[in-house]
Amino acid sequence: MKNMLVAQSGGPSAAINATITGVIDAGLESEEIRHVYGALNGIKGVLNENFVMLDEICRSKEKRDLLAMTPAAALGSCRWKLKDPKENAEEFEKIIQVLRKNEIGYFIYTGGNDSMDTVYKLSQYCKEHGVDDIKIMGAPKTIDNDLGETDHCPGFGSAAKFIATAFTEIACDSFVYDVPSVTIVEIMGRNAGWLTASAALARTEKRRVPQLIYLCEKTFDEERFIQDVKDALKKENNIIIAVSEGVKDASGKYVGEEIKSGKEDAFGHKYLSGIGKYLEGLVGEQIGCKVRSVELNVLQRCAGYMLSRTDIMESRNLGAYAAISAIRGESGKMSVLERISNHPYHVKISLADLSGIANYEKTVPVEWITEEGNDITDELVEYLTPLIQGEVEIPYENGIPKHFVL
Amino acid sequence: MKNMLVAQSGGPSAAINATITGVIDAGLESEEIRHVYGALNGIKGVLNENFVMLDEICRSKEKRDLLAMTPAAALGSCRWKLKDPKENAEEFEKIIQVLRKNEIGYFIYTGGNDSMDTVYKLSQYCKEHGVDDIKIMGAPKTIDNDLGETDHCPGFGSAAKFIATAFTEIACDSFVYDVPSVTIVEIMGRNAGWLTASAALARTEKRRVPQLIYLCEKTFDEERFIQDVKDALKKENNIIIAVSEGVKDASGKYVGEEIKSGKEDAFGHKYLSGIGKYLEGLVGEQIGCKVRSVELNVLQRCAGYMLSRTDIMESRNLGAYAAISAIRGESGKMSVLERISNHPYHVKISLADLSGIANYEKTVPVEWITEEGNDITDELVEYLTPLIQGEVEIPYENGIPKHFVL
Repeated sequence: MKNMLVAQSGGPSAAINATITGVIDAGLESEEIRHVYGALNGIKGVLNENFVMLDEICRSKEKRDLLAMTPAAALGSCRWKLKDPKENAEEFEKIIQVLRKNEIGYFIYTGGNDSMDTVYKLSQYCKEHGVDDIKIMGAPKTIDNDLGETDHCPGFGSAAKFIATAFTEIACDSFVYDVPSVTIVEIMGRNAGWLTASAALARTEKRRVPQLIYLCEKTFDEERFIQDVKDALKKENNIIIAVSEGVKDASGKYVGEEIKSGKEDAFGHKYLSGIGKYLEGLVGEQIGCKVRSVELNVLQRCAGYMLSRTDIMESRNLGAYAAISAIRGESGKMSVLERISNHPYHVKISLADLSGIANYEKTVPVEWITEEGNDITDELVEYLTPLIQGEVEIPYENGIPKHFVL
Repeated sequence: MKNMLVAQSGGPSAAINATITGVIDAGLESEEIRHVYGALNGIKGVLNENFVMLDEICRSKEKRDLLAMTPAAALGSCRWKLKDPKENAEEFEKIIQVLRKNEIGYFIYTGGNDSMDTVYKLSQYCKEHGVDDIKIMGAPKTIDNDLGETDHCPGFGSAAKFIATAFTEIACDSFVYDVPSVTIVEIMGRNAGWLTASAALARTEKRRVPQLIYLCEKTFDEERFIQDVKDALKKENNIIIAVSEGVKDASGKYVGEEIKSGKEDAFGHKYLSGIGKYLEGLVGEQIGCKVRSVELNVLQRCAGYMLSRTDIMESRNLGAYAAISAIRGESGKMSVLERISNHPYHVKISLADLSGIANYEKTVPVEWITEEGNDITDELVEYLTPLIQGEVEIPYENGIPKHFVL
């Protein structure tokens, strides 16, 4: 019997704890696992031997279910890139030493492409140095949905559901006055527009909002944008716009970069502002109608009361699959989702090599963006729709959602 | 038999439609009411005779329940202040003429203190001109919770629940990294800090966030603020701060006013930014740790998936009570809540004169703010807690909340 270790890394999501829960589920069920430990703050917690005994804390199903529904990263996270082992093998040796000392035979790391770089390097190092008593596996996580080899990523569905819902609410709010108005909603995504695209899921037969969608995969032209807004205002009074925080102009620079970043005011205070505020200024100046901007900000990745049941279940299963695969002897791979069909929605979980995942960003295919660059195609809506389906009934305590706190 | 008319005015809230629903409930139940009409876009809809027949649309309980759970203002709203009738009686005459033409004997107007000014003026005008065939009543509404004569306001409890929940989620997100960080959350409220105070409801035994709370009722001192943050960082790694958008300095000016409002950049674009961004810059400059700001923005008033059951039920009852009171012959009053007890929570609905409500803003009593000005007292927590209790099960369609759309 050996121990299993799980840790998480990179930015939080509403589903990362579900993946951890899947690992604990698998560890508790397997006769080959004595304990499931959690390392605090990712690989840093491994290096510092900062562990908690998760199978003890989460022995009851109730506790595990609560963990699975708690947003962000209960074990904490880190942004720590392992060095090239050829230049500096010290960290690798230290990790292996800590794992062996704690009789850890299986290490599951959940995160995005940076985290998969860690899993990749570590598993390669073990392979090259004949370390075959430790199996290292990745489980995917990122609201950005930009990991390769998998149909989509845990955490994305819940973030997409939050965004779509926010647009329906903002629409309710925006349609209240009978004067022309423009609302610009800025959505996370520096290089991939998946989250911004999910705003389209707010559209119903009765209300088609947002009317305009701009992803960061397509060059953003300010003049064209203003013309789009003017055209939209000719048809409707209240225009709602979804825009990726990372839209770039023809020269590849972030739109309004000089203005948004780091200008100092009279007092020497630095000013950081997003694309939403920038476009708000532009519309105000060039069109002159009522205009406001909304930044969904961190809420889109930590809204635990707006979970996609599909997402949470898949996330948990992906964690369990990575753990079970490790016990079966696999190493240096990541559990992935393969979409079998849309009607009915059906996915299969399998494993993929990390070489095509580490440090790679999967962006929205340009053929899924309309030619005008101000909307997405039906194919993309078809891809997105199943991912936000189903709700999770969350427990409340004293009027607020109850969370798992270590 | 006469008809009843209902309209709503002022900013949206998540509970205003529940109040409208209460009016429809009462109208459908009363044998003295033929039809319940809704005027679109508030008093403007009355002036333009822009009506919909609500009792037809909302005959089924299912439809009414859906309306009650839909955020914002299904009938639309307006910001329209009636002139002093002594100077210009034209609008008043027009309104009375439209009401009589449509055989409307009861007019219920729901809104905040501006809207109650409309109800007050209109009912006074009727009284002074012997118009006794039209009864005019107000029903309260405002997320700001700043109406006089009532213990609290419909819409506030749901907004407070959203804010408290957002803080629990932001805490989950913020505690992920083991580096010192400051998160500043800007909350609506120019002159009243009730919403900001409700951030305190996020506190649990396991996690006391936000650690600092600044209401606009108390002078905001930048130096003191920076010292507070430094002190807090000595005790904990991750500091979360709630601040009213309307905090003012000792001279009564909005904090950072010159910087936030209307500065022009090199391209002539105007820049509007809030207190959160301003304080983010201040902390970054004077403390230098990781810092970010979050603006909850319109989501705090239109989040229909985060409704307080207490709030929605009270809002509906207040609408019904105003309607029933009108049928019983009352006019020129507003339905209000009187708190009988906290344990168990119990309120009574009654009527109040509009003279103490119209154009008056009820702020947080200073004795409910700590002496240091960076937190609220237990008394205020006690006042707030019952208002966010209970949840509303909302219907979903295709992965997003289903809303009532006219």
